[in-house]
Amino acid sequence: MPVPERKSSRVGFSRRRLLGGAAGLGAVGVGAGIGWGAAEAVTANGSDGSAGQQIEPFYGPHQAGIATAAQAHAQFVGLDLVEGSDSAALTGILKVWTEDAARLTGGRAALADTEPELAHIPSRLTVTVGVGAGVFGPAAPAQRRPTWLRPLPAFSIDRINESVWGQTDLLLQVCGDDPTTVAHAVRVLTKNVRSRVRIAWVQRGFHHARGSTPKGTTMRNLMGQVDGTVNPRSDLDFDSLVWDDGGQQPWLAGGTALVLRRIAMQLDTWEELDRHARELTVGRTIPNGAPLTGTDEHDTPDFEATRMGIPVIPPSSHIARAHQRSAREQFLRRAYNYDDPPGPGETSNSGLIFAAYQQDVDAQFLPVQQRLADHDALNEWTVPIGSAVYAILPGIAEGDFLGSTLVS
Amino acid sequence: MPVPERKSSRVGFSRRRLLGGAAGLGAVGVGAGIGWGAAEAVTANGSDGSAGQQIEPFYGPHQAGIATAAQAHAQFVGLDLVEGSDSAALTGILKVWTEDAARLTGGRAALADTEPELAHIPSRLTVTVGVGAGVFGPAAPAQRRPTWLRPLPAFSIDRINESVWGQTDLLLQVCGDDPTTVAHAVRVLTKNVRSRVRIAWVQRGFHHARGSTPKGTTMRNLMGQVDGTVNPRSDLDFDSLVWDDGGQQPWLAGGTALVLRRIAMQLDTWEELDRHARELTVGRTIPNGAPLTGTDEHDTPDFEATRMGIPVIPPSSHIARAHQRSAREQFLRRAYNYDDPPGPGETSNSGLIFAAYQQDVDAQFLPVQQRLADHDALNEWTVPIGSAVYAILPGIAEGDFLGSTLVS
Ligand code: HEM
Ligand code: HEM
Repeated sequence: MPVPERKSSRVGFSRRRLLGGAAGLGAVGVGAGIGWGAAEAVTANGSDGSAGQQIEPFYGPHQAGIATAAQAHAQFVGLDLVEGSDSAALTGILKVWTEDAARLTGGRAALADTEPELAHIPSRLTVTVGVGAGVFGPAAPAQRRPTWLRPLPAFSIDRINESVWGQTDLLLQVCGDDPTTVAHAVRVLTKNVRSRVRIAWVQRGFHHARGSTPKGTTMRNLMGQVDGTVNPRSDLDFDSLVWDDGGQQPWLAGGTALVLRRIAMQLDTWEELDRHARELTVGRTIPNGAPLTGTDEHDTPDFEATRMGIPVIPPSSHIARAHQRSAREQFLRRAYNYDDPPGPGETSNSGLIFAAYQQDVDAQFLPVQQRLADHDALNEWTVPIGSAVYAILPGIAEGDFLGSTLVS
Repeated sequence: MPVPERKSSRVGFSRRRLLGGAAGLGAVGVGAGIGWGAAEAVTANGSDGSAGQQIEPFYGPHQAGIATAAQAHAQFVGLDLVEGSDSAALTGILKVWTEDAARLTGGRAALADTEPELAHIPSRLTVTVGVGAGVFGPAAPAQRRPTWLRPLPAFSIDRINESVWGQTDLLLQVCGDDPTTVAHAVRVLTKNVRSRVRIAWVQRGFHHARGSTPKGTTMRNLMGQVDGTVNPRSDLDFDSLVWDDGGQQPWLAGGTALVLRRIAMQLDTWEELDRHARELTVGRTIPNGAPLTGTDEHDTPDFEATRMGIPVIPPSSHIARAHQRSAREQFLRRAYNYDDPPGPGETSNSGLIFAAYQQDVDAQFLPVQQRLADHDALNEWTVPIGSAVYAILPGIAEGDFLGSTLVS
């Protein structure tokens, strides 16, 4: 799915371009159909397998996997460059990934794919590539590092296991509706650069399966909460909050900033709370995620409302604390559940792979995270155990490679 | 979904019953619809979420999850009874699991379910319960142990990590098309008995997503092979090969035997093989899994055929070695892929959760496994790292509890 009008423009985007004609391409939520049946013209509950043939366009001003309606499965892979990697090494990796990702997301085998059949069911596969602060200096010009691309400050609530879930030089985010396809894509993408990188961690996450909830349903996390309601949705929101405009770092125009936090849930104690106490903790109802001052999920919360003098949405609740104090304090949350095998003596090992995308971590994410760290009723049952920040590379036109504006 | 004609029969099944009217109930492959739309009467590629409302009947002569068309996700949970558990303790666990499983598989919250909303999308959820040899003696009459219910002999190819993936007293097999529902069910089932058991391991597996391949498509494993072609399918096959007839242990009539092997795949070296060499290793083609002597997946392999004096299907190939030498050497294979985070220095940690169901491990599984251990071209790339054997309890009618014939 090349984007013809971008073919000539290989580096950088003007703010105007982003806000103008090309912007709509970023918010691709519905895949295009190929193969044995177009997406919307099918029968009987997906039992013809047509969902497997849906494709998310790879080329465009922004990488797919961010504005893309969240797929059922995700793997976040943190990788470090091997000692002594220079700009040529990084360029090599980015070219391989571009080539592989363009093919795999299109349902085509990667070059020298030893398991081509596992590539033929794209199921809205997306591959999204980001870089950490570590590449700047050794492998990319140091002055191209955005100021916000550095470790988050340590928060009082943090129990970050830096050696397990810490910052890495590179990030591969692979999402899709079919877990076999996602597994294959991660295998291909990692093995084709294996002499040049070391995998630090892999975080596997999921939502409800595609087709098991009506399209557009907000996911539930493993605390049972409707999670992801308040989020930028329009192209305008994405342009003003999510997509980098190149103002600070021209090479990053069309990219974005990702804060990835691994947050464990203390389900044993959470489940001791009664339903009402849980609703007060978040500030929303459990059955449909409506604010405690409303009836529908997307009703606007009224943080001023009181009943017999008491605020209906407690000021200490998660949404009261997380809610923006200014328009700038907004970002895209695109979280995944994780549910890994429990350790000895545990019943569960579950939580959220919290992924927040924005233009500027310092201006948008940090004030909210600081407020939550200072006080948030939910903190009693959630513990951040992993943290990393990435610059997600701009999208590209066909013929270009991911990160070309960074390394050249 | 109660089975009216079974209501009066709470213990045991005659061979006649199993082969007669009730047998068809065992091979339930298509779920029944409830909720916001019946399974087959829907539109647009499952985007109405109706797949989430499909239900596999819980009650019947056999537990669901065996003859059930394989769901997209599985969790196998191995649990040990705490020290000093007696028959009352085991009975308590089995009653809790029966109650919870009947509700959860029906899309209803478990009793005291703290996250009822996570139960409302059954997506063909099944819960299947088995017992290992360890319960006989302490918690169930010793003389009720089937003779085949004991550790497999150690095979030359085995690298079993007994302390990690070894035998346990109890098995919960939870399968479903929605990973969130499966995670919730495992959480409920394990936490409700947590004072009475210790989780030894959890093995998570997957197939292609529901709806991403046409209904009835055989899954591919992570070596890229079509896996599961040759399998019992008819009710008659299930009755003669899979479902226990109570001949040796009357309490087990309607149950079955499960051999669960965790088999790692050496993908790095496997991928060095060219396509033809891979096909010779298995004895089937890669594109569609046809035997090398045929064109369609379900063509019967001709193990005698030669080309220029050389067997077309090599005698050392996996299917030539695994193929039955007698009618008794057959069993149901219902395997899942696993793909866990790689260890330090690895690129992948993938393989097969190999699950084989049959009446008699000694007569059906062992001769085949012995032959494969002695010689199988595939052995160079596969390593058994886990092994356990379970008696899968008989199915029950409403009002009864799983294992009632074992403990009472
Ligand atoms: C395991 C940890 C977390 C859980 C379970 C959780 C859960 C929720 C839930 C249920 C909502 C309400 C529905 C919605 O709008 O999505 C919500 C809203 C929100 N959360 Fe979280 N959250 C977690 C961590 C975080 C973190 C780390 C941040 C940012 C630092 C954050 C920022 C927000 C924001 C900005 C909102 C929207 C507030 C508004 O109504 O304006 N959350 N979260
Ligand atoms: C990672 C390990 C294994 C892999 C990748 C594997 C793969 C395959 C494949 C691709 C086929 C052909 C298609 C089919 O009929 O399903 C097959 C067939 C078969 N496999 Fe395996 N297998 C593995 C382990 C085992 C084990 C441990 C056993 C039993 C001890 C076994 C028994 C069989 C049998 C009975 C057949 C059918 C043979 C016939 O009659 O054609 N396999 N396997």
